[in-house]
Amino acid sequence: MTQCDEMVRTVHPTRTRAGGRRLDPSRDAAIAAAVLEVLGRNGYAGLTMDAVALAAGVGKATIYRRWSSKAELLLSVVDVVGAPVLEVPDTGGLRGDLVTLLSEVVELFGGPSGRALRSLFGAVVDDPVLQEGCRRLPLADWDAVWEAVLARAVERGEVPPGAGESVAPEVGPAVLGLRWLVTGRPLDGAVVTELVDRVVLPLLRRR
Amino acid sequence: MTQCDEMVRTVHPTRTRAGGRRLDPSRDAAIAAAVLEVLGRNGYAGLTMDAVALAAGVGKATIYRRWSSKAELLLSVVDVVGAPVLEVPDTGGLRGDLVTLLSEVVELFGGPSGRALRSLFGAVVDDPVLQEGCRRLPLADWDAVWEAVLARAVERGEVPPGAGESVAPEVGPAVLGLRWLVTGRPLDGAVVTELVDRVVLPLLRRR
Repeated sequence: MTQCDEMVRTVHPTRTRAGGRRLDPSRDAAIAAAVLEVLGRNGYAGLTMDAVALAAGVGKATIYRRWSSKAELLLSVVDVVGAPVLEVPDTGGLRGDLVTLLSEVVELFGGPSGRALRSLFGAVVDDPVLQEGCRRLPLADWDAVWEAVLARAVERGEVPPGAGESVAPEVGPAVLGLRWLVTGRPLDGAVVTELVDRVVLPLLRRR
Repeated sequence: MTQCDEMVRTVHPTRTRAGGRRLDPSRDAAIAAAVLEVLGRNGYAGLTMDAVALAAGVGKATIYRRWSSKAELLLSVVDVVGAPVLEVPDTGGLRGDLVTLLSEVVELFGGPSGRALRSLFGAVVDDPVLQEGCRRLPLADWDAVWEAVLARAVERGEVPPGAGESVAPEVGPAVLGLRWLVTGRPLDGAVVTELVDRVVLPLLRRR
């Protein structure tokens, strides 16, 4: 289960989706960890309720009692692991905050959870239900982190108000995601600083 | 089969992958069209040899004689549809070329083949074999189109030599791809011109 440790550390099992069931702190964390483990090993096609039950050390009935389908199960996991991984950096300056934030994205993509995340992503883009679930939580949380960083920069007078109304929040995750998912180009400090210094900061300052 | 028309128009069935078999011009185009149709309707999980055979109007044995697995079949389709969709624009200026090129990407993502492309993408990111296949062809072709556009801009003196050695080629497809696959934000002329005028052109000119 080492592959999942990084994500499991960040699982907040008491979190609920709007209108959804409250997650059981002890058992659901084990199930979420098992989902990630199986996903990383077998991909979405190989994510079966049997394999999850085995990896979580619970009966299959326990899983079926809460989640009626693979998609529903995965959606709960998306909820609990998607967001809390990114923390709001506060280095005292916009450039430092942006470098920290994009470095967290690199770490997430390239870290031990990368394989599971990749399978999750593959399943999400091809499934409208999962997609809707992703839009609600992890993406809304990215936006919240970004806005917190930007609001402080506006307060410090580093960028003008309204600076964020552009593609600036999208460029970093987009380029890093394209490298990670498709092209396999380096995910390192060099691309982070190039993105921050040559794309994002100029975009924010030029308004 | 209307959903596939746009891609099928661009299928070049005589194209071969390095070391691979030559594709049969008549029948393989029908099979490629069938793969896209089934993919758009059922997703990768629902892409079965039976469904492809039925949609293509050929026996299943015909398909199995050439492709031993679903992944191999899909890889042939990636080869024939991935690349020729993008044409090298030549508007006489770098800005016009870039707007045309990114508009082609928008059209491809948002067009009738979008659903099939999305399933294809979902399958590709979760499968190392498909991924390797994608890196060889469609991506190499994107690079070739980009380099042709940039080389002419260098010749015209619009940008300095070496301008392309940055994230500039990646930003457009990355942001458009993120909107298309994940966030659902608008894929329109506004995002294309913002990317060209505020990100890509400044990146290329600032060297």
